[in-house]
Amino acid sequence: MELAWLKQACLKLDNDAMTQATEHQAQLTKPPGALGKLEQIAITLAAMQGKVMPAVNKIQITVFAADHGIANQGVSAFPQAVTAEMIKNFSRGGAAINVLSTINDAGLDVVNLGTVFPADNLEGVTDKIIAAGTDDFSQQSAMTSEQCLLAMQVGADVVDKAMTDNNDLFIAGEMGIANTSSATAIACALLNKKAEDLAGPGTGLDKDGVSRKAEIINQALALHNVPQDNALLILQTYGGFEIAAITASYIRCAQTGLAVLVDGFISSIAALLAAKIKPGCEDWFLYAHASAEPGHQAIMQALSANPILDLGMRLGEGSGAAVAIPLIKSACALHTKMATFADAGVSEKSA
Amino acid sequence: MELAWLKQACLKLDNDAMTQATEHQAQLTKPPGALGKLEQIAITLAAMQGKVMPAVNKIQITVFAADHGIANQGVSAFPQAVTAEMIKNFSRGGAAINVLSTINDAGLDVVNLGTVFPADNLEGVTDKIIAAGTDDFSQQSAMTSEQCLLAMQVGADVVDKAMTDNNDLFIAGEMGIANTSSATAIACALLNKKAEDLAGPGTGLDKDGVSRKAEIINQALALHNVPQDNALLILQTYGGFEIAAITASYIRCAQTGLAVLVDGFISSIAALLAAKIKPGCEDWFLYAHASAEPGHQAIMQALSANPILDLGMRLGEGSGAAVAIPLIKSACALHTKMATFADAGVSEKSA
Repeated sequence: MELAWLKQACLKLDNDAMTQATEHQAQLTKPPGALGKLEQIAITLAAMQGKVMPAVNKIQITVFAADHGIANQGVSAFPQAVTAEMIKNFSRGGAAINVLSTINDAGLDVVNLGTVFPADNLEGVTDKIIAAGTDDFSQQSAMTSEQCLLAMQVGADVVDKAMTDNNDLFIAGEMGIANTSSATAIACALLNKKAEDLAGPGTGLDKDGVSRKAEIINQALALHNVPQDNALLILQTYGGFEIAAITASYIRCAQTGLAVLVDGFISSIAALLAAKIKPGCEDWFLYAHASAEPGHQAIMQALSANPILDLGMRLGEGSGAAVAIPLIKSACALHTKMATFADAGVSEKSA
Repeated sequence: MELAWLKQACLKLDNDAMTQATEHQAQLTKPPGALGKLEQIAITLAAMQGKVMPAVNKIQITVFAADHGIANQGVSAFPQAVTAEMIKNFSRGGAAINVLSTINDAGLDVVNLGTVFPADNLEGVTDKIIAAGTDDFSQQSAMTSEQCLLAMQVGADVVDKAMTDNNDLFIAGEMGIANTSSATAIACALLNKKAEDLAGPGTGLDKDGVSRKAEIINQALALHNVPQDNALLILQTYGGFEIAAITASYIRCAQTGLAVLVDGFISSIAALLAAKIKPGCEDWFLYAHASAEPGHQAIMQALSANPILDLGMRLGEGSGAAVAIPLIKSACALHTKMATFADAGVSEKSA
């Protein structure tokens, strides 16, 4: 199996639109820079959308769910059954991401890539089941090459559909018990770090649990010893189906010109994978929030990312990105609807 | 003149509702604490509204505008004419707070308390003109006692109207060239600090401008030497009409049971004044954002405040609070609409 689309180049941002949007910001009736990050968001979106006046009218949120073999090692505070249970909760509209999608008028799809406990044939959930979870990466590679590419294809297909449906912003969410262990192993392999530098409580491990999780990850890193520059093999070895799908979705967004709003810890590590697999694709990423997961800061640094929110969230599902949607909309509204000094007859800054 | 209402006690928060809301949060289908600050916002609003399931359906934003005599000392990057010009801009709907009120479906009123350049009889602006700006506090007291109390009465009346209109959240904004100088002097007097510890660029002074501003404020602090524990006299001596109105509006919210979302630097100093004049009223305050104005952090510390956003904003007008509205709404929606573990049949955290 080969992913032909993966060879395509990422699109370039529109520098002219960015320059004009920057000039437009300076004319709005406020002290220069007084809207802080909201100014930069509007300017970045202008560059992505290739128009001085960007707009975010239609938003696609896709939650990718899958189980992880590494859960067998007791690395999560919640039992593995929760992955399937939460997919059912998504289907019934009871999870945080359901609430947030509704109040933000965003489209929400859930993709089941494979769980240990069954969660198929559910309303509002697309079944793209690859296997009943990945293998335990403390013992063997989490995925075969074929499985990893299949999962990536699912992510790319989601984005192609989102583009066809004229979305202006893409958010990926994830659900998968033990996926902070998978993500942490990936980040360690990509950044040549020890697990104790990046491992955190995930859904709620105590201190001893975090130490044990780090130890298991370190042993797996030593076992597989994947070269730091082989991001695809790192993904296959330590990743999950949902992380592979998100990574591919981000790359596909950059290839097709769809702005990405990256969520928290897991999603950011998918963003880092995407940036390593397809350098330049990170131009298309906005970062929603600083996760409470302690390793997230190092991932943000590796991506030169400056996240919009810092609310101490650590839920996943795309929830942090969904909470940030109104700030993206506010940035666009202020940029496009405020009066200019000339329009309003307001005096500018003294010399 | 005497403000009879000022003697009323602040209402107490509902501890039962807070306890029940805390218990409800723990039952929602997410790891405990995973929604970070959003959980605390929902719980605090439950305590303010006296119901386990709080809601923010109707929001009042009132921008208080006035001129400051201290502007004569060249302490602002913008000319004094901008206060009146911006009131006209508010009237025509071109300012940031207009855009943000509209997209958040919040009521917006603008109150003109007195400007040097005329800005009266404008659509959407209520004239409550006390004088053509305050006096220059580097030379004399900014306000007479009568003027200060008149301005406070305006703020209290706005809140009584907001309560009659069944609002769930109150935001005060301000506009007044040189009002960071006024606010800084107040904060220095209340906290016994030097101006160089709290003075910042405001709308855009350079380093020399900030030094000069601090020097002028220090001289005024020495000239008047108001006792640190006389917050009302500090307000009268260094304040502006809009700061007096906001201070009173916050106190009145605490007396009548209306949640306050405090904006940035100027508003936070009004919140500090309110807390000093009427201890306990700060129980009713949520803090929207960390302002880019460097002295804001010290004010937040003095109020034990943990603001929701940190976007580098420094515009005033209530804009930072308005940007935070969707986060308050998200907190309420998640708290009231997510499924519980029992509802959803999701397993809880392992022992």
